[in-house]
Amino acid sequence: MTFSFSVLMRLIVLVIVGLMTLPTVEAADRDKLLSEPGIYGTFAAFSLDADWARQDQTMRIAQLATLKGVVEQHREKLVIDTYLLRGLSDRADVLFRIHATELRETQQFLLDLQDSLFGKHLNTAGVMHGLTKKANYVPGMPDNLKAELKTPSEPGLKPYVIVIPIRKDAEWWSLSQEQRAAMMQEHTEASLPYTKTVKRKLYHSTGLDDLDFITYFETSRLEDFQSLILALEKVKEFRHNRRFGHPTLLGTVRSLEEIIEVLAQ
Amino acid sequence: MTFSFSVLMRLIVLVIVGLMTLPTVEAADRDKLLSEPGIYGTFAAFSLDADWARQDQTMRIAQLATLKGVVEQHREKLVIDTYLLRGLSDRADVLFRIHATELRETQQFLLDLQDSLFGKHLNTAGVMHGLTKKANYVPGMPDNLKAELKTPSEPGLKPYVIVIPIRKDAEWWSLSQEQRAAMMQEHTEASLPYTKTVKRKLYHSTGLDDLDFITYFETSRLEDFQSLILALEKVKEFRHNRRFGHPTLLGTVRSLEEIIEVLAQ
Amino acid sequence: MTFSFSVLMRLIVLVIVGLMTLPTVEAADRDKLLSEPGIYGTFAAFSLDADWARQDQTMRIAQLATLKGVVEQHREKLVIDTYLLRGLSDRADVLFRIHATELRETQQFLLDLQDSLFGKHLNTAGVMHGLTKKANYVPGMPDNLKAELKTPSEPGLKPYVIVIPIRKDAEWWSLSQEQRAAMMQEHTEASLPYTKTVKRKLYHSTGLDDLDFITYFETSRLEDFQSLILALEKVKEFRHNRRFGHPTLLGTVRSLEEIIEVLAQ
Amino acid sequence: MTFSFSVLMRLIVLVIVGLMTLPTVEAADRDKLLSEPGIYGTFAAFSLDADWARQDQTMRIAQLATLKGVVEQHREKLVIDTYLLRGLSDRADVLFRIHATELRETQQFLLDLQDSLFGKHLNTAGVMHGLTKKANYVPGMPDNLKAELKTPSEPGLKPYVIVIPIRKDAEWWSLSQEQRAAMMQEHTEASLPYTKTVKRKLYHSTGLDDLDFITYFETSRLEDFQSLILALEKVKEFRHNRRFGHPTLLGTVRSLEEIIEVLAQ
Amino acid sequence: MTFSFSVLMRLIVLVIVGLMTLPTVEAADRDKLLSEPGIYGTFAAFSLDADWARQDQTMRIAQLATLKGVVEQHREKLVIDTYLLRGLSDRADVLFRIHATELRETQQFLLDLQDSLFGKHLNTAGVMHGLTKKANYVPGMPDNLKAELKTPSEPGLKPYVIVIPIRKDAEWWSLSQEQRAAMMQEHTEASLPYTKTVKRKLYHSTGLDDLDFITYFETSRLEDFQSLILALEKVKEFRHNRRFGHPTLLGTVRSLEEIIEVLAQ
Repeated sequence: MTFSFSVLMRLIVLVIVGLMTLPTVEAADRDKLLSEPGIYGTFAAFSLDADWARQDQTMRIAQLATLKGVVEQHREKLVIDTYLLRGLSDRADVLFRIHATELRETQQFLLDLQDSLFGKHLNTAGVMHGLTKKANYVPGMPDNLKAELKTPSEPGLKPYVIVIPIRKDAEWWSLSQEQRAAMMQEHTEASLPYTKTVKRKLYHSTGLDDLDFITYFETSRLEDFQSLILALEKVKEFRHNRRFGHPTLLGTVRSLEEIIEVLAQ
Repeated sequence: MTFSFSVLMRLIVLVIVGLMTLPTVEAADRDKLLSEPGIYGTFAAFSLDADWARQDQTMRIAQLATLKGVVEQHREKLVIDTYLLRGLSDRADVLFRIHATELRETQQFLLDLQDSLFGKHLNTAGVMHGLTKKANYVPGMPDNLKAELKTPSEPGLKPYVIVIPIRKDAEWWSLSQEQRAAMMQEHTEASLPYTKTVKRKLYHSTGLDDLDFITYFETSRLEDFQSLILALEKVKEFRHNRRFGHPTLLGTVRSLEEIIEVLAQ
Repeated sequence: MTFSFSVLMRLIVLVIVGLMTLPTVEAADRDKLLSEPGIYGTFAAFSLDADWARQDQTMRIAQLATLKGVVEQHREKLVIDTYLLRGLSDRADVLFRIHATELRETQQFLLDLQDSLFGKHLNTAGVMHGLTKKANYVPGMPDNLKAELKTPSEPGLKPYVIVIPIRKDAEWWSLSQEQRAAMMQEHTEASLPYTKTVKRKLYHSTGLDDLDFITYFETSRLEDFQSLILALEKVKEFRHNRRFGHPTLLGTVRSLEEIIEVLAQ
Repeated sequence: MTFSFSVLMRLIVLVIVGLMTLPTVEAADRDKLLSEPGIYGTFAAFSLDADWARQDQTMRIAQLATLKGVVEQHREKLVIDTYLLRGLSDRADVLFRIHATELRETQQFLLDLQDSLFGKHLNTAGVMHGLTKKANYVPGMPDNLKAELKTPSEPGLKPYVIVIPIRKDAEWWSLSQEQRAAMMQEHTEASLPYTKTVKRKLYHSTGLDDLDFITYFETSRLEDFQSLILALEKVKEFRHNRRFGHPTLLGTVRSLEEIIEVLAQ
Repeated sequence: MTFSFSVLMRLIVLVIVGLMTLPTVEAADRDKLLSEPGIYGTFAAFSLDADWARQDQTMRIAQLATLKGVVEQHREKLVIDTYLLRGLSDRADVLFRIHATELRETQQFLLDLQDSLFGKHLNTAGVMHGLTKKANYVPGMPDNLKAELKTPSEPGLKPYVIVIPIRKDAEWWSLSQEQRAAMMQEHTEASLPYTKTVKRKLYHSTGLDDLDFITYFETSRLEDFQSLILALEKVKEFRHNRRFGHPTLLGTVRSLEEIIEVLAQ
């Protein structure tokens, strides 16, 4: 089974999962939730328990259908993106990014997920929360970047995702607003050459977690992403990071259907 | 069961749990314990073990009834508040805040809780203790805040709770009382714009735990809470925090009945 | 069973445990071991495994009898004190303090404890060792304090115990003997107001563990204990602590019989 | 079985494993992947779970055949080297080094590995990624070293492998390119006496993991390797390492067949 | 069984274990391996799993015989010393110190140990490696100390063993050879009063592990050992330790037969 996942089985998974689809509900406005300020973004990473792999495939497919069900059930209020960390990250197997106008909606989704037959096999590897804000630090951010951030990734492309949590040092916060803005200007300029190939999104975490920022990156060109980070490490603002990563999460963007197909094997 | 928790089952839970209620005992004076100095506040966070979710619902409801029983049994001497961390915090599933005049009463409650059929499924995620004191640092604290702290949260509202443990650096304690008071004055002024939407309560932990303070926040507006923390990070006193959070606990305020209902699913 | 531990069962436990008592052996000289220099003090903290609580009460009582047996067997050479951490400390459930003239006697006790039917349910949470020395730093220590340290706690009183491990920084040890003595003088003066209500005992750990000191406190007035620690944090010597606590252990003083009674429930 | 692994059994393992070999596919170009810039190197370390050793030998051999199968299946696109850490490293039992032109190919290999019957017994101990670059810091690197890096280790020799992850401090990145190059020159000169007996390879990790570099060493003379590291610790550049090792991975180079033979015992 | 390990059973253990002894092989030259430079010393600490204690005694004795077998099998090339940490150290139960001319011989021993029936109950708590060198820092080391280091401990004496790993800071390595030698001279002078009662041996770890040195101590007088460490903490060289201990391992020297006897109980 490991060597060739049969086309037949792939069809069976898709059909079963397809039948699960609930009567159409109005989906949350993806554009709005992914571009406006005042939206809560939650990153919830999970690893599968040891029992998961020991079950036979039929059982696993049945349980994966409950995953699909829970996501469908909450799509009216939430935008839920999924990522495959397994193989690239030693912290977790799957990552959910959830956008919501109220964090208690996200809590309800994660409660339902963990209560589902699939969720009983999930161990929480980490949960981080952040709030989107108007980009007041970076006035010159190009419009096309904002546009790109709203569009979902093309299916089949499977670009890479990187999530880096950041905690600033106490000195950073004691600087004046002008001093911080000047440093952020330098930071922004360093990142300009990479806006075309590396998508970015910023979440403000202070108080919601033991972080100040969650930085989210999507790219098909990891080499450009590495050059971007190296460029950012050379500006003054970087010296005010008390924590940068730890963990850095690296994975691939996958639709819910792709996640289900991978985990069914 | 995950997708729709039936109204019938909800009734059954409430009835069973209701029947458990012991003959009325004089409840501890909530107002007094939540407002006076010299009271011990304990924050005990627990996660549910892997066996919990594998049991059928009848068994879980029976065990949750013992949770209710233990809380009832101790309500004569203790004020016990409950919070749901699951989904929002990766450290624990439930949090108890216990106020007592003597810490040995709290110990007896937690012993009884862990000995109960429900408690056998709890893993201790963390226990922190603090003592309330007269607010000598902050002479200008508004009276309405104090009043608000005494009132329990409205049922149904489910505001957010955030608990942030703090450890000061050695330099902080070597400052003179006047120097510390001046910094605390600046701290207090920074927090004034948020007193209406963010409730706060302070516990002194030095010696009782590896902390100096436990700061407790309740709010329905997380965005205001984030602005409050950002404001506090900009004053001089913040630079004397050796530890701030780690963990930051985030959850929702829930009555014992709500906790039982969520865990019964 | 959780709600009311029957008087009958309590009697059964005491009788069974009483029958276990071995033929009288000469007990170690408590006064001598608790007051003289050159004595090794070991703090061994354990948590109970998940299987412990799943056994029925008869089985647990039978196993607790082996705990009593092992303690009796070693009382000729060791002074063994017991503490209940459960509920107040998230690190461990029970704590043993063992005084011996030779550490290999302590090792034999802990080997026998862990080999006993009760011990098979213990997970080691931490072991710390220290050596008592003549109090050359603190010439003015009142005699009544020394006297108090020799007397066992009154049964029923259940005062609190706090154990704080300390590691000094490298600079501390590079100071001259006079400089350290001057700082310790200031330290001692700060603690004088609390000698009546807070008992203290000091163990020198350097080389035996990753610590320099183990400080042991017993009090019925936790508020005084907190004031004492705050007073000690304000003197210069405190700035030379690289580690203070981590963990701070908080519990209640309990006789072996009380520990057995609590764990039998 | 432990004392003498029979020659017969050894043959059986080799035959079974040999029969597994898939129809010849074009293998990835080892020379190219091990010498060119722009190649992704992944270090994935695993420990075997407790169940592994409890199975009988026939079962283990059958499962090891799936390991061989997965490696064969991916040899068209990847270069996969294997190392035995067990006994020398307390972090993991086996280490895979995977070279690929795209990290998503490596992810697919590790997904297939973990889904195999053998992989179900693997716990991920750590995954690190790096990118090879043109050695612009070190212009004088001798050609024979590059040549040696391309050749696989001789079978039977079993030289040692050491992997040391490195994180530079923020100050390092704020230096000018010239300052860093000057320090790297000094670093390179210090290492010259050891180029003959210690093979080295460098991977750039910034952004892909919580590291900046992964340094890889192969040697039959550990004493020379130690002298090399001591020489490198004495140059200025070393003071800009915020993390050096943690973990240092030490093991022996083993072919896949040797790994299978060791684990079959 | 805990209270009195019968003389009969003790005999049975010794006979069974004795019968295991393999036909005499030439043992490794203990004197040479314990005194010469260029020898690899490995410290491997293990804890017993929870299943170990749940087996009946006959089973445990049979498994301990395989421990004896593996040690015998490797005595031609290795010198293997054993220590009992259980009861005195919270990190591990047993410690092996292995001296070898090639680290791959040590790896083979530890592979065989972990593959044995006894080894399947061992969890690796830590493995550290070091290399012996000519004592060029300390020209005045007395000859009688070297002589003492070669002689095995007297049976029955059970002196204490302490193992302290050390990591120097980056500044240490940037000092000149003369500066380091001057500091080591001061270090050596501080230790002279304790050479008679505290045996020492030094291993150089740089690059082989996340350490620079492993310091090994044997003594029957722990009080002298503590005074030695206090003396060493007061010299300048101590300020260049970034890590000292963590963990400090404390145990008693025991022959393999004694270890087997203790674990059989």
